[in-house]
Amino acid sequence: MRILGIDPGTGILGFGVIDVDQKGKATLVDAGVIRTPVKQADSDRLLTIYDELHEIIKELKPTVMSVEKLFFAKNVTTAMSVSQARGVVLLCGKQHGLELFEYTPMQIKQGITGYGRADKKQIQEMVRLILGLQEVPKPDDAADALAAAICHSSTVRMS
Amino acid sequence: MRILGIDPGTGILGFGVIDVDQKGKATLVDAGVIRTPVKQADSDRLLTIYDELHEIIKELKPTVMSVEKLFFAKNVTTAMSVSQARGVVLLCGKQHGLELFEYTPMQIKQGITGYGRADKKQIQEMVRLILGLQEVPKPDDAADALAAAICHSSTVRMS
Repeated sequence: MRILGIDPGTGILGFGVIDVDQKGKATLVDAGVIRTPVKQADSDRLLTIYDELHEIIKELKPTVMSVEKLFFAKNVTTAMSVSQARGVVLLCGKQHGLELFEYTPMQIKQGITGYGRADKKQIQEMVRLILGLQEVPKPDDAADALAAAICHSSTVRMS
Repeated sequence: MRILGIDPGTGILGFGVIDVDQKGKATLVDAGVIRTPVKQADSDRLLTIYDELHEIIKELKPTVMSVEKLFFAKNVTTAMSVSQARGVVLLCGKQHGLELFEYTPMQIKQGITGYGRADKKQIQEMVRLILGLQEVPKPDDAADALAAAICHSSTVRMS
């Protein structure tokens, strides 16, 4: 199973692709970010996200998409901007026929470390260990996207 | 100039198309809503919105899109849902090469009635009068979308 994890955002969107074998062992395929310039209009930035994500899916051929879901937000403006990008991400995944799953940050923490109060550094360290990497993937958004992908693989394994 | 106004939402999205002549006179071309079932996953609903909006643009060939913009929100969950739909709307407009404009509810009120504190009924009545209609377009979301379109036409005329 090849899983594409997404940490949505308009300025920087993290993606991480992993393969999960029959035994549940996860390996890194690719990870990175899509960046869009602050100066651009929302519509231009959303088009860039859509086009680049389309290319990533076409090239890496995941069958499942695991997207981080905002559960609540302190800053409504940020929440609205992230949600616009999420809308485009979900649309793109659906158009490519991917199975879509959404997890809250707490579910991702629980799925990876077994408890919901782990901090960002602990999550990233677990991502590194689970994928057998020398270093934590950079930037943070790429690591967060991998965490979303790993969360889905562990959820599937448990059920 | 043919303007497509949009009142975004996931469950019900209003659209309204008007023609504006050289003197600034606006006439109704079409108005209505795109509805998506509550039971469906977000991704399915966003795909429906994208596909139907794509058809509307292809058929009616507007050159400008005027989208209502949430400025703040009491309910963050609603704001996130509306923003997901907005993301798909902006993407679709951009892909069709439309000129995109965004107006807050207060700007729309000011653009139509001349002051920002008009209530919903007053706005709808002005939409009816400006377009020379016998009745206020139904449902409300279609009338709100027409208000967004008219707002853009009046903003352009003034400048």
